[in-house]
Amino acid sequence: MRILITNDDGWGTPGIRLLVEQLQTLGEVIVVAPKTAQSGMSNAISVGKMLRIDLVEQTDGKRVYTCNGTPSDCVKMGLEIVCHDLKPDLLVAGINHGSNAAVNVIYSGTMGAVYVGAEYGIPSIGFSLDDHRMEADFSHYKPYLLPITQKLIEMSVERGVCFNVNAPTGPLKGFQFARQCKGYWDDEFAEYHDPNGGTFYLMKGVFRNIEPEACDTDESVMKNGYIAITPTSVDTTHYPTFQKARQ
Amino acid sequence: MRILITNDDGWGTPGIRLLVEQLQTLGEVIVVAPKTAQSGMSNAISVGKMLRIDLVEQTDGKRVYTCNGTPSDCVKMGLEIVCHDLKPDLLVAGINHGSNAAVNVIYSGTMGAVYVGAEYGIPSIGFSLDDHRMEADFSHYKPYLLPITQKLIEMSVERGVCFNVNAPTGPLKGFQFARQCKGYWDDEFAEYHDPNGGTFYLMKGVFRNIEPEACDTDESVMKNGYIAITPTSVDTTHYPTFQKARQ
Repeated sequence: MRILITNDDGWGTPGIRLLVEQLQTLGEVIVVAPKTAQSGMSNAISVGKMLRIDLVEQTDGKRVYTCNGTPSDCVKMGLEIVCHDLKPDLLVAGINHGSNAAVNVIYSGTMGAVYVGAEYGIPSIGFSLDDHRMEADFSHYKPYLLPITQKLIEMSVERGVCFNVNAPTGPLKGFQFARQCKGYWDDEFAEYHDPNGGTFYLMKGVFRNIEPEACDTDESVMKNGYIAITPTSVDTTHYPTFQKARQ
Repeated sequence: MRILITNDDGWGTPGIRLLVEQLQTLGEVIVVAPKTAQSGMSNAISVGKMLRIDLVEQTDGKRVYTCNGTPSDCVKMGLEIVCHDLKPDLLVAGINHGSNAAVNVIYSGTMGAVYVGAEYGIPSIGFSLDDHRMEADFSHYKPYLLPITQKLIEMSVERGVCFNVNAPTGPLKGFQFARQCKGYWDDEFAEYHDPNGGTFYLMKGVFRNIEPEACDTDESVMKNGYIAITPTSVDTTHYPTFQKARQ
């Protein structure tokens, strides 16, 4: 089994190291990770930019490349340049330092990479932990990584469907399938004044859950102590509206 | 009516100028456009970057700002900083120079901006033309911009649903609702060698339509000479898989 791994935090971070360590037990691992932090890069691609890819580590059953592009660029270069001879059987991104539940999924570089895998018809999974810190504790998550990966491969979903897996911190009760929680980011900018009197802003924000009572959302599943697995689609058509409009 | 307008090509491009000219007949227009070209930026947000917004033009019923961020940043700054007193009734992005049909929707900075509008519960529409050139001819598209905008407002879809509108070049027969065509990008990198012997790559690509016989996709609707209107969802849950997995 050939497994392509990426993330949006770069090769130096603990999340991807743990993922590689675990997935190596399943087969050959090829890492293509961004050279610099790419959080919040969504599905951005580097149009018109000189892209480079460098082999930085090679051991038995593992090759690690870094790329000066986005997570989506990493997957595309991994598939077309590194794996041109033999496509991977699985794409896994993460473990992201920070939750990609709810509307975070559309901003996430990790999930951007996962969408690219799904676009190309490869079983694709993104793992995230609801803790942004580099010193985040992954020990409770670790025993679940392989069983979840194997379960999701066995589901053999159709092309264009992938998985967004999010774990809460603290002890875990297990995992549950979930849907994307409805909500939005609020209070998103902190205002500053520079020494010349100009104004600039830095992003911050508070997530507003607009369905806190629902029990089947990724947010509520995590709140209840479970890992939330959200089946996610590259096809963004809103079918109820499409069907109504075609009548 | 207050209308927030953005794009991913910047304020200097013909597509957004035409959109502003047309939408000004419906109410007050506020433009927040990126300072530099942001094609392929998807829903990227500028975490940790100093963001600035500048008023560059002001006339009766129209204000134009530029922002040094992504299209998604532009919408967020438009909503929270420029329109903090009174939220817009409508968000429109485009007209993009280039199609955002099929899987392009996940890479598109234009549609990234539209998703942000939908996240915040504002009726949101992205207009694109299947012609990348700056000198693209929009004259066939122009008579449809206001009727389509008005029709989509009247549909008053639920929060989180927005519209991806794509016109082919050449004469038009009208518009039709469509779903996102399934397919993928292929042959995505051109290889070069720099003077020092290093290798770099530039993105290119060919779109592979994997359902060319379907007649209800955005690609086929455009091919038949119609503007394709695809209802698009910020909720990326794949409900058939979710429902099956919960059983």
